[in-house]
Amino acid sequence: MWVSLKIARVSMNNSETYGIVDSKNEKLLLKKEIEKKFDVKLPNRVEDFLSKNEGKHLELVRGLENKFEYFHQIKEFRLLPPIKDSYKIICLAFNYLDQDTWLRFGKEPPKEPVISLKPRTSLTGPYCDIICPPFVKQLDYEGELALVIGSRCKQVDKCHIMSNISGYFIMNDVSSRHIQFIDHQYGRAKGFDTFGPCGPWVTTTDEISDPDNLKLVTKVNGEVRQDSSTKNLVLKIEEIIEKISQIMTLEPGDIISTGTPSGTALSLSATKGDKYLKHDDVVEVEIEKLGTLKNKVRIEN
Amino acid sequence: MWVSLKIARVSMNNSETYGIVDSKNEKLLLKKEIEKKFDVKLPNRVEDFLSKNEGKHLELVRGLENKFEYFHQIKEFRLLPPIKDSYKIICLAFNYLDQDTWLRFGKEPPKEPVISLKPRTSLTGPYCDIICPPFVKQLDYEGELALVIGSRCKQVDKCHIMSNISGYFIMNDVSSRHIQFIDHQYGRAKGFDTFGPCGPWVTTTDEISDPDNLKLVTKVNGEVRQDSSTKNLVLKIEEIIEKISQIMTLEPGDIISTGTPSGTALSLSATKGDKYLKHDDVVEVEIEKLGTLKNKVRIEN
Repeated sequence: MWVSLKIARVSMNNSETYGIVDSKNEKLLLKKEIEKKFDVKLPNRVEDFLSKNEGKHLELVRGLENKFEYFHQIKEFRLLPPIKDSYKIICLAFNYLDQDTWLRFGKEPPKEPVISLKPRTSLTGPYCDIICPPFVKQLDYEGELALVIGSRCKQVDKCHIMSNISGYFIMNDVSSRHIQFIDHQYGRAKGFDTFGPCGPWVTTTDEISDPDNLKLVTKVNGEVRQDSSTKNLVLKIEEIIEKISQIMTLEPGDIISTGTPSGTALSLSATKGDKYLKHDDVVEVEIEKLGTLKNKVRIEN
Repeated sequence: MWVSLKIARVSMNNSETYGIVDSKNEKLLLKKEIEKKFDVKLPNRVEDFLSKNEGKHLELVRGLENKFEYFHQIKEFRLLPPIKDSYKIICLAFNYLDQDTWLRFGKEPPKEPVISLKPRTSLTGPYCDIICPPFVKQLDYEGELALVIGSRCKQVDKCHIMSNISGYFIMNDVSSRHIQFIDHQYGRAKGFDTFGPCGPWVTTTDEISDPDNLKLVTKVNGEVRQDSSTKNLVLKIEEIIEKISQIMTLEPGDIISTGTPSGTALSLSATKGDKYLKHDDVVEVEIEKLGTLKNKVRIEN
């Protein structure tokens, strides 16, 4: 099996580009350096680099990867959301078996995906601040496994589903429970700018042979809040794509965030006092093989 | 005051382009014909033509409009959704004063926008079929005034709000009430492909001096179901933009659909028997100055 490629979007001298990450050694090689050294042309957008409708860029770079010299330290750059031009960011609700809703209240998990859409303007980088307007209360984290679609598909045949995914990354699906309970819809509660920290990079599917078995941990100021695994998903990755593609055409660059396990501030606050995010709190979400997001909370004056 | 420009997206020999519409005489002049005759270059996408961040194309064409000879009959073309590359399609709920929720049940209309997002893959042309999978029940129409954003904006200053709108059109925000009541979220119920007929074209803001006073009528097979006016909006156009821009950055091409008045199948069915859409039903939504959508319902086998 190939080693997964890890692709990070970065900001450099006021422009944006991407590079290939050597996460073990915390190094990075920029797109333009790959193009120059190997005399190849790569697309400008990560979405097109990953898209299976746009050519064989991924295979090309994979074939060269053992010749790479990683020039840069990752920390030289400001990391951006790995994907930004998503026409859909589909978030699942009620999709973990370990949620209070089933364990404490005896309800049945849904058989069909309960979804809401987040705007792309909510995405922010893996180490950027979560900025919360002063009128927004009960700010909550949701550590989630997200996937990015690599090819246009509708009503996908079961045996081809997994080939429509081009990679995985981490999403923190931040929401205001206060607004969620007023509106009964997630649109506003989850739609604020910066309420979607994600990354740190896209990891291609090669190494992730079983996306339904990845450890997921969320910490706030070092305290473990969510400690679960994607093996607790109600709808597995394959079922999620199958069922969503019965509803809508999926397009390259579309993101599906697969839901969050137990341990949100909402559920913890019911028994353990106020666990919602405060100014200067640091939220970390770590998923096995995918890295760690680390975002500070800033409540605006 | 200028006469509004009307811009339609059309399909032609398997490619897509746009043109300027003379709605009175049902005629159309194509982008490439304008470019040739007046030796100008226009953007390929309607979103860029309308965007105030992309140049003065609108002003340019407006200045030439009195010299236009409209070559084509509109009916020569298949009309497409006037806007298609929207990163956000924001739909408001509970935004008409004449809704049962307030009149019959005595609740208070919301002070903040209750929103959900529709994917761009749900958009379909003004005369295309609404295609409904066989497992989807209680199909409902919602005639709505939609607006398209022309400039990137966040936390908009009240006196500049209206300049961020580049045009208006009609949206039929189709939904499955059956799925809505299972999920309690609108994401799936409103997210199916073709559940967003829209158009027939974008009408620029010039002639629409008061978007909060436009007559709106929805008919099913000629029977009037919704007969209202945007003067019944709870949050007016200006307030909608002001409040949504407090939440999220709006971008050129983003669509906001402003909610629907009384008379949905959901509310009528409570007292008048099953009024949901059936196979072969024809739904028409007409808004003063903006034209008419006319879509046939096709329930798939």
